[in-house]
Amino acid sequence: MNTNEKIERIRQLMKEKNIAAVIVPSDDPHGSEYVAEHWQARKWLTGFSGSAGTAVITQKDAKLWADFRYYIQAESQIQNSLFELFKMGEPKVPTFQKWLKDTLKPGDAIGLDGSLFSAANIKKFKSAFKTKDISLDTNINFIDDLWVDRQELPKSQAFSFSVKYAGKTRVEKIQEIREKMISLGASYHLMAKLDDIAWTLNLRGDDVHTNPVNISYLLIEPEKINLFINAKKVDQNLEDELKKDGVQLFDYSNIYSSLSTIDKKETILIDPENTNFKLYSSVNKENKIIEKPNPAIGLKAIKNDTEIEHLYDTAVKDGIAVVNFLYWMEQQTAADKVTEVSSADKLSEFRKAQDDFVDDSFDPIMAYQDHSAMCHYSASKETDVVIGDSGLFLSDTGGNYLTGTTDITRTISRGVPLKEEIKDYTLVLKGHMAVAFSLFPQSAKGYQIDALARQYLWNEGMDFGHGTGHGVGFFLCVHEGPARISPFPVDIKLKKGMLLTNEPGVYREGKYGIRLENMILVEEAFENEFGTFLKFDNMTYCHFENDLIDKTLLTQKEIDWVNDYHTMVYEKVSPGLEAAVAEWLKKKTIPL
Amino acid sequence: MNTNEKIERIRQLMKEKNIAAVIVPSDDPHGSEYVAEHWQARKWLTGFSGSAGTAVITQKDAKLWADFRYYIQAESQIQNSLFELFKMGEPKVPTFQKWLKDTLKPGDAIGLDGSLFSAANIKKFKSAFKTKDISLDTNINFIDDLWVDRQELPKSQAFSFSVKYAGKTRVEKIQEIREKMISLGASYHLMAKLDDIAWTLNLRGDDVHTNPVNISYLLIEPEKINLFINAKKVDQNLEDELKKDGVQLFDYSNIYSSLSTIDKKETILIDPENTNFKLYSSVNKENKIIEKPNPAIGLKAIKNDTEIEHLYDTAVKDGIAVVNFLYWMEQQTAADKVTEVSSADKLSEFRKAQDDFVDDSFDPIMAYQDHSAMCHYSASKETDVVIGDSGLFLSDTGGNYLTGTTDITRTISRGVPLKEEIKDYTLVLKGHMAVAFSLFPQSAKGYQIDALARQYLWNEGMDFGHGTGHGVGFFLCVHEGPARISPFPVDIKLKKGMLLTNEPGVYREGKYGIRLENMILVEEAFENEFGTFLKFDNMTYCHFENDLIDKTLLTQKEIDWVNDYHTMVYEKVSPGLEAAVAEWLKKKTIPL
Repeated sequence: MNTNEKIERIRQLMKEKNIAAVIVPSDDPHGSEYVAEHWQARKWLTGFSGSAGTAVITQKDAKLWADFRYYIQAESQIQNSLFELFKMGEPKVPTFQKWLKDTLKPGDAIGLDGSLFSAANIKKFKSAFKTKDISLDTNINFIDDLWVDRQELPKSQAFSFSVKYAGKTRVEKIQEIREKMISLGASYHLMAKLDDIAWTLNLRGDDVHTNPVNISYLLIEPEKINLFINAKKVDQNLEDELKKDGVQLFDYSNIYSSLSTIDKKETILIDPENTNFKLYSSVNKENKIIEKPNPAIGLKAIKNDTEIEHLYDTAVKDGIAVVNFLYWMEQQTAADKVTEVSSADKLSEFRKAQDDFVDDSFDPIMAYQDHSAMCHYSASKETDVVIGDSGLFLSDTGGNYLTGTTDITRTISRGVPLKEEIKDYTLVLKGHMAVAFSLFPQSAKGYQIDALARQYLWNEGMDFGHGTGHGVGFFLCVHEGPARISPFPVDIKLKKGMLLTNEPGVYREGKYGIRLENMILVEEAFENEFGTFLKFDNMTYCHFENDLIDKTLLTQKEIDWVNDYHTMVYEKVSPGLEAAVAEWLKKKTIPL
Repeated sequence: MNTNEKIERIRQLMKEKNIAAVIVPSDDPHGSEYVAEHWQARKWLTGFSGSAGTAVITQKDAKLWADFRYYIQAESQIQNSLFELFKMGEPKVPTFQKWLKDTLKPGDAIGLDGSLFSAANIKKFKSAFKTKDISLDTNINFIDDLWVDRQELPKSQAFSFSVKYAGKTRVEKIQEIREKMISLGASYHLMAKLDDIAWTLNLRGDDVHTNPVNISYLLIEPEKINLFINAKKVDQNLEDELKKDGVQLFDYSNIYSSLSTIDKKETILIDPENTNFKLYSSVNKENKIIEKPNPAIGLKAIKNDTEIEHLYDTAVKDGIAVVNFLYWMEQQTAADKVTEVSSADKLSEFRKAQDDFVDDSFDPIMAYQDHSAMCHYSASKETDVVIGDSGLFLSDTGGNYLTGTTDITRTISRGVPLKEEIKDYTLVLKGHMAVAFSLFPQSAKGYQIDALARQYLWNEGMDFGHGTGHGVGFFLCVHEGPARISPFPVDIKLKKGMLLTNEPGVYREGKYGIRLENMILVEEAFENEFGTFLKFDNMTYCHFENDLIDKTLLTQKEIDWVNDYHTMVYEKVSPGLEAAVAEWLKKKTIPL
């Protein structure tokens, strides 16, 4: 079936079921950032392979919404089909919700698969469409019927994540979650997000690209803990270990029926942002549902002492890998034909040489010159270029180690840097430092910190179109909630033990991009008459580029910060380097 | 009747009506910040005269909630009554909503006067109490029956505010509002907030202390504009003028019946945050209500060119008054026995000498030494002190001129300043300047700017417990929405033409407080490849204190800013000063 045939088949099914429009999103039933191939229905339907986008089909139209990262790719991938692109974010381009509301008639029904939308989103849809008397049928899964060559569900082996890394046993974690459940008045708690489940049960797997998680659901009952997972993924040893800790296994597909048979007296804690609508609506109407964030999210975000100790080691290991890579890059000339893609392989090699390394924590972003100006660029065979002897090169990469997850961005100059490049690099670094050495009251939220990173750019008429930082998991997802440092106001205080990134940047279209990213850990600084103050500690050890820094733009405090940081980087990283590399690093970290 | 007798009478009425609890708030039916005496029911009931607080009576309890500004005053004013104080904001002190929910039983009813709560708040209450099956009776006004010596409604004369100040006629303003109504699909629009009505109709009055407004409601129909106001407040000339512009007068009390008789086909725009519940619920269920912010709020916030031209003149006039005051203060020694209260009178005198001055724009805050550490201190007969020859003195005052509203805070040292005072003053000034010379993209919201003012304090372990800035009206309320610069995330972009304050501070309990406040106007800076950037222009002309500035803590950019600002202040203000004062100002503005 080609795309137009798929559209035609869906339209037939729509007629049979009296559905005026079908929405096909890019999501899985777990609200994952990265979606396993099995659930890439929007890609199967449209041919567009980007990570985000929404397809909508009516009898008259076939529309695809994609964001600025994918305008070109989407146009090209749908060009031989009936699909038409809506460029999200461009002026006057409606959201798919708005378009549906404008296009459909009162009395029409929209069909979708409720397992692919959060309960919170369906609630919003319903109330938005209700005003035009448009209904929602959340049990429409035409694609399940039509998609015959569909990939199976991922079935990587699950494994126990040792308490020597995790710092807390699953029994302790469940105890903490149960305490929160009790304080919220809940006897049951359903978890659907894969990293929350992985953290809670000290389980890891390899079901989702670069995310060491297992496709599963977790239902905590007053006396029992039920894990819904493909039985084949759990070997006997692990099953025994889980049973000892009170965790029983059920088949992955049984979650819906289990929810519907909970005793009607029970009260169930469900996080509507992180639970799909089909799960939510499988609960009996008689059960009381408490809609609150999953307690595991807040607990997971606060790294414990064992995790923190490992993170300091991991910073050294990852620092050694990245410094080795930057040294190696400096040896390569255009004649060596290193490309964006091959450089990524090389850095992965350096990471693999480190203890406890498991996998990249996300697809590496290696971007040369104008490619680095696209802040979400990812090199492919089609776009790959040789890294030449001039211009800027940006690498944004990370590793998943048993001892923690890393995320680091460095920008280097392949030749003698231009004046504009030096000024931009210095301004980005000033913003990076303003965050790095900030003190802030314990009431502060990430959106209050964000402008500290932007102020020097703003004052020169520049800005960057992404957040300053995001939370990071521990041998888990590189993007982890709930805290972030961003202009978007998330009502979450920065708390001692939270691990975040600090990654301001600047992007000059068609020319270059600069981004400087360290991980930072929230620590307590001191308490005084004004209250408790927090600070960040650097959790990334890798030098910045002195030749891209204009010292005259720095305050003495900033100069001292760079020099102290470089001294620390050399002390921590050089013992793990070969002599030639250590010597090179010594030069790279000479005081300004 | 004393307080306990009032409580007793209310309890009898509660029994008769089967009401388990009565809530008495501090508000009027217009959601005003300052409430006319007529509506001060909570004060009448409890004896507590502070500006904010909530009383709740059940058969068993009589409780008063007051915030930290009023802990001491409230305790003392209720000490001979059955009322007990809840100190809002202290750990473990429940909100009155939470207390009611915990205290009442399922099936109980809470009584309140729906005209004293916004529609948005009643909606929140209802949904919060519903989960415990507690109902709300919004037609309970026992106090109306019991309060026999109640003050009449204010009846100051209304007057036309000339277009030569307002810059736009009422016909133009209504036209703009109607365009917004049409785009929202509304044929009717109800306005209840007094400054919105005053702005829309170019009307002013003197009904509320320091707010030049008239007690009234406004109902815009497709063909008519109906003003609900006491007829005696509008003289024949004004009535004719209004009629010419299509504005008809109705009695103030007729608003409720007018709302209930709107044709059921009509769609009514109502701002639930700024409209009381009784108004909201007077509309027939058959009418469609569009719940959106009142368009006048956004229009009023953007000062037009005429207003802006006047504001620059006003800055000079107000600067002359404040510089004269500061000069005069420096001549007074402890022996002269100038007090906080008498100094306020003196500054009002200087303001009165200026053209177009009408009234103070709020009760002056004159605070000496430890009093200045209380950021909401207001001197009274009981607290008044003589201003001595050492220590810090803070004055936060403003004027309402026909040519605009002002708000300025300066902090001076009465003797040789201490090292700590100089450091704190300098850090506050650095934050003030960081806002003053910031550039920011036109997407920026106030909460993103806020930390710029705090960063230098934070980095020394200090902070302040109020927002950095608020919107200011034009010959209207000194606190005007919708924009503000505060840690609280208000989803309003800073737009060209918005007038705000910039007032960071620091407060050392028992010792002193420092606050430095200018008004700032949002202007367009430039457009480039990163988009349009905005900046602030200073709308306050008065020097800072060089002897309280530690130059070694300033960057060259900051030193230049102070010197340039001082040069401008001298140029603008000195022509309006007597020679001796001008000479003094010259010395005060010598370059750092």
